[in-house]
This record gives sequence, structure tokens and C-alpha cells, in this order.
Amino acid sequence: MRNSIWQLSIEDLESIAIGAGILGTGGGGNPYLGKLRMRCLLEAGYRVPIIPPEELSDDALVVTVGGIGAPTVGVEKLERGDEEVRALQALEAFLGRRADALISVEIGGGNSVAPLIAAAQVGLPVVDADGMGRAFPEIPMTSFFIYGVDPTPAVLCDEKGNIVLFDQAQDARTLERLARSVTIAMGCTATFAMAPMTGAQVKRTAVWHTLSLAKAIGDCVRDARRQGQDPIQGILELSDGQVIFRGKLVDVARRTTGGFARGMAIIAGVDSYAGQEMLIEFQNENLIARIRQGSGEAREQRNRRESPLHLCTSAQGASQYDEVRATVPDLICIVDDDTGEPITTELLRYGFRVTVLSIPCSDKLRTPEALAVVGPRAFGYQVDYHPLPKRKGGGIT
Amino acid sequence: MRNSIWQLSIEDLESIAIGAGILGTGGGGNPYLGKLRMRCLLEAGYRVPIIPPEELSDDALVVTVGGIGAPTVGVEKLERGDEEVRALQALEAFLGRRADALISVEIGGGNSVAPLIAAAQVGLPVVDADGMGRAFPEIPMTSFFIYGVDPTPAVLCDEKGNIVLFDQAQDARTLERLARSVTIAMGCTATFAMAPMTGAQVKRTAVWHTLSLAKAIGDCVRDARRQGQDPIQGILELSDGQVIFRGKLVDVARRTTGGFARGMAIIAGVDSYAGQEMLIEFQNENLIARIRQGSGEAREQRNRRESPLHLCTSAQGASQYDEVRATVPDLICIVDDDTGEPITTELLRYGFRVTVLSIPCSDKLRTPEALAVVGPRAFGYQVDYHPLPKRKGGGIT
Repeated sequence: MRNSIWQLSIEDLESIAIGAGILGTGGGGNPYLGKLRMRCLLEAGYRVPIIPPEELSDDALVVTVGGIGAPTVGVEKLERGDEEVRALQALEAFLGRRADALISVEIGGGNSVAPLIAAAQVGLPVVDADGMGRAFPEIPMTSFFIYGVDPTPAVLCDEKGNIVLFDQAQDARTLERLARSVTIAMGCTATFAMAPMTGAQVKRTAVWHTLSLAKAIGDCVRDARRQGQDPIQGILELSDGQVIFRGKLVDVARRTTGGFARGMAIIAGVDSYAGQEMLIEFQNENLIARIRQGSGEAREQRNRRESPLHLCTSAQGASQYDEVRATVPDLICIVDDDTGEPITTELLRYGFRVTVLSIPCSDKLRTPEALAVVGPRAFGYQVDYHPLPKRKGGGIT
Repeated sequence: MRNSIWQLSIEDLESIAIGAGILGTGGGGNPYLGKLRMRCLLEAGYRVPIIPPEELSDDALVVTVGGIGAPTVGVEKLERGDEEVRALQALEAFLGRRADALISVEIGGGNSVAPLIAAAQVGLPVVDADGMGRAFPEIPMTSFFIYGVDPTPAVLCDEKGNIVLFDQAQDARTLERLARSVTIAMGCTATFAMAPMTGAQVKRTAVWHTLSLAKAIGDCVRDARRQGQDPIQGILELSDGQVIFRGKLVDVARRTTGGFARGMAIIAGVDSYAGQEMLIEFQNENLIARIRQGSGEAREQRNRRESPLHLCTSAQGASQYDEVRATVPDLICIVDDDTGEPITTELLRYGFRVTVLSIPCSDKLRTPEALAVVGPRAFGYQVDYHPLPKRKGGGIT
């Protein structure tokens, strides 16, 4: 299926929403809401061809479309439905040229579906690739921009009809600062169309075949669920990942600040992880997973006395978790043991029984120029990146 | 001079900078810096024709160009020189049409000169009119937008080459919120080109002949200064204003917050105002002037014990000044007794000997629809607007 054009079905969409939730590593926007919107369009007869990157002509004009903002807000402040199309059309009007195809900026979460929603409405294909092979919180953190694509012109629009166009920006980091300000002023979520690219640029800089990968992971979870089996093993085989923890969510501290959902979660270990705790810190997406030795039950008792927000501001608290198990850019995914569904950071809450997976990221995120933007030090963690081992050609390519 | 086209001279510019400082009512950006930039252009041979609004053709395309942000920042973060032109050209490129003339959004302060700077560089005339007949801190507070002109498309650019275009906004208030966010992200000052208007719209909505008025006021101050006379009487005759206080600046509290210079100043009375204190509150521009009966010397002694910032946060402190002498939209101008020069809010400091003038605003700001946007209640003051008396056809028209 990977090397020819295919038409997206409702079954594909159901699977992609699950797979993109896992590849979203906690973020990328809520995949459930995007799925519902796209499902309506498919049921109404709209169609979207998915085109493999190798089929893209070198001079095609490809635009990336999606959502920006805090997922905590995105689950409450809903789209009115035509944001993606209006953003795309404002960009096309500025360019004086129609796009030939759309692409996800990030395969994770709702942003895997956003270009499908726009493409269905305007009759364009979507490229089976994206700019991260996961999700990240900020604009510069895409393989497109790391490898030299100009992110401008870029358009932001909101559900009230406001449209802002970023004509020129010094660099992706400046665009991030300007666009994040506008996103906050628009109410902490907005919809973008940006970075008109050539087909040749997409082939060179994108992470390939990630829509197919999301679908394959979702198919596997759904098959396992139908057969009453544990879906984790299938996810690990397809993604080349490993289980790094199992346990119960005993503490979540989360604030919507600076236009992001930031915080941390603590998981008390069970089974072979009993007596350990894992601390996962996130900025929309899970960034770092660390372990400390200590009783989960003792933790639960302390919890009744301590404010979870205390954790958020206490570097000392976090520093007790001194054994790093996984960091960006590798993926850290929290999966609900009951349903096999990924849990995004805005939905984390006390009591979930979870398995934590770590999945090796795309090779495009493992170069020195990429790690300068998406490595643990770029997020302020004073640790080196130790890449998870990876089968040649397996998982996220 | 008011009814025919005239060429701006260096002498005109010197006078306009003084007159615009007075009409700026404390804000509008520092007029000195704008004057220096424009002076360089005139000395280099650039020319700007000033065109009376009555000479403008109804279908001319007129664009307003100027600066936005906190004057406290504007006096330190200087322009690189081509911001006005780049903003204008980005707007023209978006419209697919060249402008026929430029106009000030506000005759007050540096924004009286900004369109002259752009016009000189691109060879356009500037209309002898503006959108306020004074200065105000926010975008919706112009006669253009109060009387129905669409403020979009609008462009912001900064000294680093970033360009942001506001394609559509719900209303001027939304544009203010979005553009203010971008201005803050650009470092608290930026340059705009916005609101492409027809000549007919300018004639209907602008405050007429304010560049001529600024020049006449400045001529008068400079004449008086040359002849060793008090310039105040001439200013009052030309502007139809009155003296409302004289004294010494004994306290200033000022913060750069939300993209504005906000604060208050206290003046201890002298001469016939001895034994009284005036409190002036400002948001870039002076907004309200209130009196309390009480010794200036006692105030100075208290000053040594009290933090001025205490005043800024103390509603109770302000409420002791219970006699309102002037409010927006009428102009409140603080003039240095030594030099006859207006003192803008970012330059207020302890020790200045000043005269406070109040000048009746344009009739275009006195209608119910205008007072809803620029009256004292629009700024959060629970007082009614009592218009200063005004000669028919005198002062700001």
C-alpha cells in the first residue's frame, strides 16, 4: 500500500486516529475531535487520495495545514469547520497559485487529520509523510525547517474569521514567537497553513510514509481489541518500540501557560516495575521519562498531603528522578491498559492504569542539526540524547 | 496655506514637531526622533507635497502609516529607517495597487512625522489631516474606524525584517488585540501601514488640516521663544485651549505593561494653584486630570517615605483627587515652562516646572459613537465627559 495512491476510507480514518495518537507522544492536538470532523466529511461523500512522497512531482506546490496552540484549550474551544480551508485559501491568494497537495506538519494527534479535512473540502491529495514523524510543541521543530525550508509565508486563522499572514520572518524561531503571540490572542488555539514547498523539498526533508504507519498501528490495535488480545506487542513490532514502564497514574500537574499545556505526571510502578516511580514531563508532548526507586504506595500517601502543583515548580522534586529512560526526540507514549488507546497530555488524570512505550524517532531527527532544535538540551534538560536502538528500515523511517 | 498644496520645508518640520508634541497630549511617540529622521531626508533632497483633504480625489487610495507600541521603548529601540516603506510596500503588494497618498493616524507626537518619512522615500504626497486630531493609545480610537473604515488589511513590520499582515479582523478592537500581541513579540514597538481608504472616506472621516495646525502652533512657540516671550498665549489662541494648572512635577509612577506606558504624575501647584495638587493618569497619552486641595510641600515630604509605585496600584490614592478638570477625548498637555516644549509621558520626571493645558478635541470625537470608544468611560473612568467650551470653527476642527 505504501508505494501507490490510495483513497482514505472511514476504516482507515479510525485506525489513523489511534496510530496518530500513539505517534503523537501525548500531543499534536486531540485526535478524537479531528476524527469526528473528518468522519462527517467522508460520510457526506468527500474523498481524499493519499499520495506516496515518491509519486509527488518535483515542482508540485505542497502546503502544510494544521492546528497550533494548547491541547487543553483545543478540547473545549472547537473549530467551526472551515478554518483549514480559509487558512489555505488565504495563503493561496497571497501566493497567487493553488496548492497541488497538502501535508501534515506532524503525524501525531489531531494534526495528522487536519490536512485530510482541508483536502477533502478543496479536492486535493494528501502526501503520505509529515514534518516530524511524531509531534512537537513548536514551529521550528519540523524536519522541513531544520533542513532549510522557509516557513513563510504562513497564515493563522481562527473560528471568528480573523486571518493573520506572516509575510516574512527572520527564521522559524521568530515565526514561532510571532505566531504563538497571535495564537494566544486568538484564544490559545488557531489553525495554520504555512511553508509552501516544492515536491522536491518535501521528498528531501519530510519523514516518509507516516500516514501509512499510523494506519498500520491503528489497524493492529483495533484487530487486537476485536480479538481480545493485548495490542501492545503489535504496536512495538510496527514502531520498533519497547515498553519502559507499567503502572498507575498517581499525580498530574498541568498548567496552560505561554500557549502550551505544560506539566508532569507521576506513575507508580506495578508488575516488574513495582517499587519504582516514573516522572514524565511534557510541553504539549511528553519530553523526558525518568525513574526513581521508591514505593508507589508511599507516593500515594504523600500525595494526599502535597499539592501536585508543588511538583511543577520544584526542580528539587524532579531531580530525585535521576535515571533517564527516554528523552526527546525519541517518542514517549502513555497507553491506557484497558482500551489500548493512547492518552494525550491534556487528558492525563489520576487513576489511569497505563503502559509507557518508547519508540525510536526518525533518523531525520537524529542528526546534529536536528538535535540542536529537538534534542533534550533544546528543551532545557541537562542530559545527552542516547538514541533508542532501532532495526534498519523499521519503525519511523 | 490650508487650501492649496504646499511643500514641506525643514522650518515647517521643526514647527510641526513642536505642534505635534502639544497635540500629542503626552503620547504618539517621541516627536524628536521622528523629526531627526525626516530632517535627514529633507537635507538629502527628498521632498514631500502636503495636500489639503479638499484637493484629494474621491477615488484616490490613501494609506495610514505610523508607529505602534510603548513610547518608553520607542526612545531606546530605534528604527533602522526603512520600516515605514517596507510596511507600505507589503500592503501595496497585497492590494495589487500603489497608494496615491499617505495620512497620519494621529497628528500627535512622532506619528505626525511617520507618513512624511515614508512619503519622502517613495515620492507620495501626505494629506493635511489625521485620524484623531490628537493621539490615542489604541487602534480603534481613530475617527477613520469610528466612522466605518475597515482597518484591514494592515501590516506590521519591525527593524529586523519581520512582516506580519492582518488580512481580516472581526473589528478594530480585534485588530488591536492581535496587532498589540505582535507588537509586544516584536519588542514592544513596531511600524504599521493599514486601512487603505478612498479619498472620499478620508474626507468624510478624517480630522482636517491638523498638519497645518501643528505647524502653526509650532511657528508660534518658536517665534515666542526667539522674542523671549511666553509662548503659552499663542498656543491657547491657536488651539482654543486654556491653562488648567501650573506647578512642579513631584511624583511620577510609570510602568511599561501590556505594550503601553501606563502610569500617573502628580504636580504640586504654584502661583494661583498653590495649595493644590493635580494628578494626571496616562496610557501612552494623558487621559484624565484631577485636582485635590492640599499642600504641595506636604506632598513632597510624604514622597520621601512613599514609593511612587504605591500610587499606581492604589485606587484609594487616586480617589482623593476628586475634582475632575479635564478628560479624554479633550487634550491634556504638559508643557515645560523653561522651554515651551511639550513633555511626553515617557520623559516625565521629578522636578519639571510645567503648565498644564487643556484643548478641546475635534467635534468628530464628541459624538455618542465616538465617546463610546474614546470617552472617559471607555478608559474605565466612572465620570461623564464634560466638553471644554470651544469657539465655532476654532482650534481642532
